[in-house]
Amino acid sequence: MEKKRILLLIFDGLGDRPVKELGNKTPLQTASTPNLDWFAANGACGLLDPIGPGIRPGSDTSHLALFGYDPEKVYSGRGPFEAAGVGIDVRPGDVAFRINFATVDQDGKIRDRRAGRLKEGTAELAKALDGQVIDRVQVFFRAGTEHRASLVLRGKDLSPEVTDTDPHEEGAPVLESQGKSPLARHTAHVLNEFTRFAHKALDLHPVNEGRRRAGLRPANMVLARGAGVFPAIPSMEKRWGMRCAGIAGVAIVRGICRSLGMDVLDVPGATGGLDTDMVAKAAAAVNALREYDFVAVNVKAPDICGHDGLALEKLKVLERIDAMMGHLRASLGPDTIVALTADHSTPVSLKEHSGDPVPLAVFGEGVRVDAVTTYDEVAVASGSLGRLRGMDLLPVLFSLANRAEKFGA
Amino acid sequence: MEKKRILLLIFDGLGDRPVKELGNKTPLQTASTPNLDWFAANGACGLLDPIGPGIRPGSDTSHLALFGYDPEKVYSGRGPFEAAGVGIDVRPGDVAFRINFATVDQDGKIRDRRAGRLKEGTAELAKALDGQVIDRVQVFFRAGTEHRASLVLRGKDLSPEVTDTDPHEEGAPVLESQGKSPLARHTAHVLNEFTRFAHKALDLHPVNEGRRRAGLRPANMVLARGAGVFPAIPSMEKRWGMRCAGIAGVAIVRGICRSLGMDVLDVPGATGGLDTDMVAKAAAAVNALREYDFVAVNVKAPDICGHDGLALEKLKVLERIDAMMGHLRASLGPDTIVALTADHSTPVSLKEHSGDPVPLAVFGEGVRVDAVTTYDEVAVASGSLGRLRGMDLLPVLFSLANRAEKFGA
Repeated sequence: MEKKRILLLIFDGLGDRPVKELGNKTPLQTASTPNLDWFAANGACGLLDPIGPGIRPGSDTSHLALFGYDPEKVYSGRGPFEAAGVGIDVRPGDVAFRINFATVDQDGKIRDRRAGRLKEGTAELAKALDGQVIDRVQVFFRAGTEHRASLVLRGKDLSPEVTDTDPHEEGAPVLESQGKSPLARHTAHVLNEFTRFAHKALDLHPVNEGRRRAGLRPANMVLARGAGVFPAIPSMEKRWGMRCAGIAGVAIVRGICRSLGMDVLDVPGATGGLDTDMVAKAAAAVNALREYDFVAVNVKAPDICGHDGLALEKLKVLERIDAMMGHLRASLGPDTIVALTADHSTPVSLKEHSGDPVPLAVFGEGVRVDAVTTYDEVAVASGSLGRLRGMDLLPVLFSLANRAEKFGA
Repeated sequence: MEKKRILLLIFDGLGDRPVKELGNKTPLQTASTPNLDWFAANGACGLLDPIGPGIRPGSDTSHLALFGYDPEKVYSGRGPFEAAGVGIDVRPGDVAFRINFATVDQDGKIRDRRAGRLKEGTAELAKALDGQVIDRVQVFFRAGTEHRASLVLRGKDLSPEVTDTDPHEEGAPVLESQGKSPLARHTAHVLNEFTRFAHKALDLHPVNEGRRRAGLRPANMVLARGAGVFPAIPSMEKRWGMRCAGIAGVAIVRGICRSLGMDVLDVPGATGGLDTDMVAKAAAAVNALREYDFVAVNVKAPDICGHDGLALEKLKVLERIDAMMGHLRASLGPDTIVALTADHSTPVSLKEHSGDPVPLAVFGEGVRVDAVTTYDEVAVASGSLGRLRGMDLLPVLFSLANRAEKFGA
């Protein structure tokens, strides 16, 4: 049995609903996508519920499911995966928070939950907070994009069952975190101590002195939310016996990949935004398949159009994705099984993720070709893959790649 | 509600992948099978994942699932079901091993792991080993086909968590079994004591004296592997309230049937091989349906062609299966629900089981006839049964047979 390699293409937020201005067709039904259709016509198609029918996934939970990890079991909040995304080496048992740099007034009330959406100096600010030890708990702190940052606590008997310090509104005071259970009081205490320390360390920090001089709001407080514990999960390599790489621009997907032990590859020109160079991503994936058994590529652009409610923009993105698939169509060898799918639908009419299933096409040697000839949400439903769950996708691809272990004799 | 009878036809290893020499069609897409197609055209179709999407099943685990038993819960190894297949009355808690009769030299090293694939005298050799008691553990030993045999240990606190005595290579000494946990040491000890006893009892056994005289290798050792504990499971009759029979040539399927309390019927001419008389099997099934509520028939031949990689041979087997279905088409009354499916795919390109789903057709009075008109891996996918799991098949058939209990009021 020749083992094949696997390329998993995740078109973020690809799925959609009928759009009035497109004659009640979805963007994918409307766009001209000859290459996507070619993969569908020469492969097997179906619908995928990233988590389960009707379940409205986050990008984090759906990527976990697509990588074969049950989000019901391993996901307790976005914090740990975002922390991994900004480069903190999170470990099982670590409790992580999503952080906003914020501006508080002298009376302690929040003037700006995002500190003027500051863009510069955040790495220096983070450095002033990183590496503390509070009550024998190690503190890791790293800046993310703009006002966002990650906080990780590492120590004994920590719990994610604590309330946010972020009141989620301006004019309110920073909240004292509370343990939701007796065991969690210690974690809340450490978070509160850290918050007090952070205010002192940030308020007179040279970056903030500079901001004040420039008439900008100082980033003199941290607001914590979304606590989660990093689960004790085996890496992709350990679990599935494959060398795995991820190509993604957005931090949360990079974080998921990194926290599952995948190598996250940087691609010049790939940004995680609308301006991303999709063909560069495809080329990087083809290269990576020489080194890795499994390569996952996330293309964020359709999701952005969905969130912004821009149907015509989504059409354009789909046609760029089609060009990317044209590159792959010409470049991939017969030793690769390719799956084209999405992490969730982001209908432009909704401007949010929905629980609608996403299209799935699987292409490669050994795949039973069915009668579906176009890649869209409706056409694929009559394909031979039927309707699968995200958690089932990797086993299906393993089997086609001749990598599945036999259960029984 | 008139209760109907159920005939479950399991075409072993039926499913396949596109085959180059068949113009990238599967054998089932290529073969002329008017009777199989007739059942599909006049019934409801779908795809079946015997265990789950992408899961590569063994014959044992898949038959358990098709009979409604979750292999994740009841299967710990092939040993117990093979022991049941050779006629040992296994009971819950029994630990069973797969055995090879082997030849060891005087220095204790293995010369031949299969003792010249001996065919005769094995029943006598087995008799010399059966019925021992070692440290209050009862020993059951029965010969299988050729050099194969089964060993069952019955007693208190036994565990299947022991290593093989079979080193799986020639020239190596027989291994001492080790307990993988403290609890399992006792079982390993009994197995080691039995192995020493077996060598003494076999070495000078008249059967082996005769073999030596004839220049053949003596079967003077037993090698144990594949320990498993027989699970505490209710019989098919107890669980489903049906009198059940199985018709199968291969030992492991007979063992599964027997261990679930089904009557295993012998059919003259049915061999479990390529030379089996399929029409005789069909006739026996029709007969059995007068006595039993549920009859399962395993036809091994397509699996054999798959393992041997013989596409044209598989075509011929499919056409013989079609003749068998012609017999059933003419013989079955309206009081029977028939399901046509497989335990797994055995693609000729792979020569091994794969995780690809298998075709399913269900025929009988009350079945909602869908638009599918041919019975093959791709055509059935658009049928009204959708994509089911093996564990769901029996409930679906019960419901159609008007045998399902209502859940709720």
